[in-house]
Amino acid sequence: MVYELYYWPSIQGRGEFVRLCLEEAGATYVDVAREGKAGAGMARLMRLLKGQGDPRPPYAPPFLKAGRLVIGQTANILMFLGPRLALAPKDEAGRLWANQLQLTVTDFVAEVHDTHHPIASGLYYQDQKKEARRRTSDFLQNRAPKFLGYFESVLSRNPRGDRYLIGAKLSYVDLSLFQIIAGMSYAFPNYMTKIVRRHRRLFSLHAQVQERPRIAAYLASQRRIAFNEDGIFRHYPELDVGVS
Amino acid sequence: MVYELYYWPSIQGRGEFVRLCLEEAGATYVDVAREGKAGAGMARLMRLLKGQGDPRPPYAPPFLKAGRLVIGQTANILMFLGPRLALAPKDEAGRLWANQLQLTVTDFVAEVHDTHHPIASGLYYQDQKKEARRRTSDFLQNRAPKFLGYFESVLSRNPRGDRYLIGAKLSYVDLSLFQIIAGMSYAFPNYMTKIVRRHRRLFSLHAQVQERPRIAAYLASQRRIAFNEDGIFRHYPELDVGVS
Repeated sequence: MVYELYYWPSIQGRGEFVRLCLEEAGATYVDVAREGKAGAGMARLMRLLKGQGDPRPPYAPPFLKAGRLVIGQTANILMFLGPRLALAPKDEAGRLWANQLQLTVTDFVAEVHDTHHPIASGLYYQDQKKEARRRTSDFLQNRAPKFLGYFESVLSRNPRGDRYLIGAKLSYVDLSLFQIIAGMSYAFPNYMTKIVRRHRRLFSLHAQVQERPRIAAYLASQRRIAFNEDGIFRHYPELDVGVS
Repeated sequence: MVYELYYWPSIQGRGEFVRLCLEEAGATYVDVAREGKAGAGMARLMRLLKGQGDPRPPYAPPFLKAGRLVIGQTANILMFLGPRLALAPKDEAGRLWANQLQLTVTDFVAEVHDTHHPIASGLYYQDQKKEARRRTSDFLQNRAPKFLGYFESVLSRNPRGDRYLIGAKLSYVDLSLFQIIAGMSYAFPNYMTKIVRRHRRLFSLHAQVQERPRIAAYLASQRRIAFNEDGIFRHYPELDVGVS
C-alpha cells in the first residue's frame, strides 16, 4: 500500500502527527502537496479538498488516501493507521484508550494554536498580539500544566512501566507526545526549561523517541520541515514569559 | 448493560451528545452526577476523575462506564456506543466517516465555547467581554458559515438522500448535528434566522430529529437540562449581532 498524505507543504502542523507514524513504520508514502513541479501537488490537494464529486469530502487537511478511502481528521487517520503500522494496541479497550489519549492531544494542540490566534485564525498574529499575550499567560499558568501533568501521570500509572503511554510497546500516541514536547520546547523554551523536573517521564519519552533510528533519520532529513512562525508551535519571545 | 454517564450535573455541555444517543436508543443509563442526595453522585464523579488508582484515568468529563471500561472523550464514547446502540454504520469505511464527521463537530463545539471565552476558560465572561465580542464577530462571519456550509454539503452529497448524514439511517452524528442547530439557535437566534435559507437540509434534520418519539419525550422531560449561561451555547444578546 502506498499512502498519500495531503497536507499544507510548508508547515509541520497537524500533518506532522501522521508523518511521524509513517516514518517510524517505514511505510511507503507520498507527501502529495510537496511533490511535483510548480505546485502540481498542491493543486491536487486543493482539487480533493474542493472536489464537488466526492460524497465524503474532508473538511480540512490533513487527509490520507489509502486505496479508495479518503480519511480526514488527524486522530481518525491515526486510528486507521495505528493497527496497520503496528503502532496501536490490538484489543478494543487498548484502542479506545489510545484514541482517548489522542483526542486529548488534539484538544491540547488546538489550545496551543489559539495562544497566538485567540481572536481569529484568519487574522495575523500582529492584529491580536495583546490578546495573545493574555491568552498565552493563562495557557502557561493553567492549561499547559494541566495537560502535561495529565500525560505525565498516565506514564507514571502505566502498569507496564513508564517508558510508553500504553503497555510495553511504542504507539502512535507516544509519537504525538514526542511532537508536543518538541513543539512546546521550540515555542516556549523558557517555560519548558522550568518544568522539566516535574515532567521527567515526558521529557525522557521525547528523548527516547528522538533516538529511534527511523525517527532520527527522518528528523535529519529534508522531509522534516523546520518549526516556523506559520505553524501551530510558534516562537514569539514576548509570549514565552516566566511563570511563577 | 446499564451505562453510567459521568458529566457535570447542571449543563448540557459535551455530555449532551452522549445523552442524546442513550435516549434515542432507549438504553438504560444512570446520569451519575445528577443522582443521589446531597451531591452523592457528584462526589462519585470527582472520585473517578481524581482516582489515584485507575491506570487509565479520564482527563475530563464526560466519561462513560460500561462494565469495567471507563471511556473518556465525547467522540470516543460515541464511537464506542454507536455500533452497540445501532447508531453507526456497520462497515469500517462508514465508521471512519462517522468518526471523521464527529471530530469536525468536536472542533466546531470548541470554537463555539471560545466565542464567550476567548482568553481563558477559568475567567468569567465579564472579564473577557471585549475580546468575546471580537471573536464572536469573526466566528459568525467566517467560521460558523464554513462549518455549517460543510455539513449542509455533506447532507446534499449523501448518495442515499439528504435525510441523514450517512446512508439511509439515523446515526449518532445526526443527533450531534441536531444538538448543534438547537444550541446555535439558542445562542444566536438572530444569526440563525438569517441563515435558514442557505441551510435547509440542516434545519430539516433538526426538525426531524426533534420529532422522533424518544427524543421528543426526552426533550419534554426533566432529564433534558435547559440551555443556560454556564454551558457551551450561551445566549448573550450583545454577541448575537447581525452579519452582513
